Amino acid sequence: MNRTGFSRLLIIGLWSMALSAHGADWQALPQEAPAPADNPTTDAKVELGRMLFMDPRFSSTGTVSCNSCHNVMLGGEDNRSVSMGVHGKTGGRSAPTVWNSAFNSSQFWDGRAATLEEQAKGPVTNPVEMGMSDLEVAMERVRSIPGYQAYFEAAFGKDNPMTVDNAAKAVAAFERTLITPNSAYDRYAKGDKKALNEQEIRGMKAFDSIGCTSCHSGPAFSGPAMAPGTGLFMKFPTYADSPYVAKYSLMKDTGRFEATKKEADKHLWKVPTLRNIAVTAPYFHNGSVKTLEDAVLVMASTQLNTKPDKQQVEDIVAFLKALTGEFPEQPLPHLPPTLGWTIID
Amino acid sequence: MNRTGFSRLLIIGLWSMALSAHGADWQALPQEAPAPADNPTTDAKVELGRMLFMDPRFSSTGTVSCNSCHNVMLGGEDNRSVSMGVHGKTGGRSAPTVWNSAFNSSQFWDGRAATLEEQAKGPVTNPVEMGMSDLEVAMERVRSIPGYQAYFEAAFGKDNPMTVDNAAKAVAAFERTLITPNSAYDRYAKGDKKALNEQEIRGMKAFDSIGCTSCHSGPAFSGPAMAPGTGLFMKFPTYADSPYVAKYSLMKDTGRFEATKKEADKHLWKVPTLRNIAVTAPYFHNGSVKTLEDAVLVMASTQLNTKPDKQQVEDIVAFLKALTGEFPEQPLPHLPPTLGWTIID
Repeated sequence: MNRTGFSRLLIIGLWSMALSAHGADWQALPQEAPAPADNPTTDAKVELGRMLFMDPRFSSTGTVSCNSCHNVMLGGEDNRSVSMGVHGKTGGRSAPTVWNSAFNSSQFWDGRAATLEEQAKGPVTNPVEMGMSDLEVAMERVRSIPGYQAYFEAAFGKDNPMTVDNAAKAVAAFERTLITPNSAYDRYAKGDKKALNEQEIRGMKAFDSIGCTSCHSGPAFSGPAMAPGTGLFMKFPTYADSPYVAKYSLMKDTGRFEATKKEADKHLWKVPTLRNIAVTAPYFHNGSVKTLEDAVLVMASTQLNTKPDKQQVEDIVAFLKALTGEFPEQPLPHLPPTLGWTIID
Repeated sequence: MNRTGFSRLLIIGLWSMALSAHGADWQALPQEAPAPADNPTTDAKVELGRMLFMDPRFSSTGTVSCNSCHNVMLGGEDNRSVSMGVHGKTGGRSAPTVWNSAFNSSQFWDGRAATLEEQAKGPVTNPVEMGMSDLEVAMERVRSIPGYQAYFEAAFGKDNPMTVDNAAKAVAAFERTLITPNSAYDRYAKGDKKALNEQEIRGMKAFDSIGCTSCHSGPAFSGPAMAPGTGLFMKFPTYADSPYVAKYSLMKDTGRFEATKKEADKHLWKVPTLRNIAVTAPYFHNGSVKTLEDAVLVMASTQLNTKPDKQQVEDIVAFLKALTGEFPEQPLPHLPPTLGWTIID
């Protein structure tokens, strides 16, 4: 069997797994995210991670932090089609939300990072994101800010704690706390049958019956729980003759192929979470679709070869809006300063 | 008397006022800032103001908030020589700190805004800052985010609260809470004679004896208390033959003249606060001086025509570092979303 054939089998296999959720195994979002054995979540790591996440000084211009594009004051991204990094540069993909990213079994749109720890290192040296020449150069900036030492020691002990790996672990630990429970949907799934109104329940049923749950299953609507790095990948668009494909340039980016260079990965994309989808417009990997209504129509057409009527679209959108959770309160961190000099060139 | 003569008299008059602080009327920072009669500080305004201050969606690109350049997680600015606005654009002046800006009697480096309310409107439509075409266009964005309505009503009542003026009032009210009390210097000024060490006390005396307190007097080291809009302006550089003038391009920008177009205002600048000066490098209106040591040498040379010795510089720097206050804890705001669409073009 060639690679393509194998991957197709894999996809079909995964799809069948996903399909087992079809017929409504509606699950609430866990309140805690699992952590890898080598990076248990601790308060000290979370506090440090929040600071690193918010600190713009580890970008070449000193203007771009993780939070710039994955804004936790908003829906965990920037409401832009594609993000804007150092010097106003833009890339080709829309920032995925950081909220509930702990429940993704792989990271980035193409799943090229298996873990949050691995993901955290990517944007720092991306020339259109944070634009640092090298992770060690960024880490040298962290080390040169005296106040960070104590936070790294508290999180990782006194034996050479200020490493790139530990910085990534701290950011990942922080991100594992970014969970938005208690959406109307969650309360409904836990038994409060008044938590969703009639339209939202109609939308929930339509969401299931037209086939959205084939992929968007599980507690985060990103597929079933899978081992870290596995990822649930689907071809998008599946029905390439949909008129939306040209309209929204949906095949310009070849998706997972760009990371793996395997033919079978062309136009495969990670199934993204639908949690908080109402607050993370615009939509899709290239951010080309402005509204949630249009996003529903695009998915129905390109993935399910169907066209829900106006009422169904409105119902599904109402249901999707009911996936907006509660954003936990958190403190605004105070970032340790450099005293009498600046770290920014 | 021509305008120049009058302005010179005014400067001399102000200087005499300032000189009254010479000989050490060391004052602690007040814990509360005065508010104008038409904008008393309330919790509702502060909460709304913090949200507006942190919200990047009112810039043309959706990437630049007030906090981008006046970062309250840092020293109230960005540690850059000049700030970076939309599309990576830069202007000619370094962002002044927002911490304790409530104690400035005028705003901006050239004092062209009399109040925080007036200042808050400036960057929104500056093409190299937030880049909006018009304040009303920005306000239309605010109005289009449903969740803001309730916050404006809580702050300003139900009768047409969502106006540009009220948005500016809310931001100003928030900024009036950005006070950093209890620096080592403040504790010393209040009577704790152990709060400063020997070197810091030597530096304090040198700061006074070489003449820094001529201008940098008062509780914020920005001159005596004055009516809003008055401003304490000084010529910088006063000694234009200082070698630092060419080295750091200190006369390229004509300062207050650019706002008033009055000859007498050429190279006049507002006396900036020295509160938290250690955490707001680089220095001066153009951010050309990287370190606090060099900033002390530049000021001594260009303003006082003197050259403190190495020990004096180190002592004065130690004293200036003792002006770093306590940054109050505050919550990370959750910004109201747009549901199912994006406000960013």
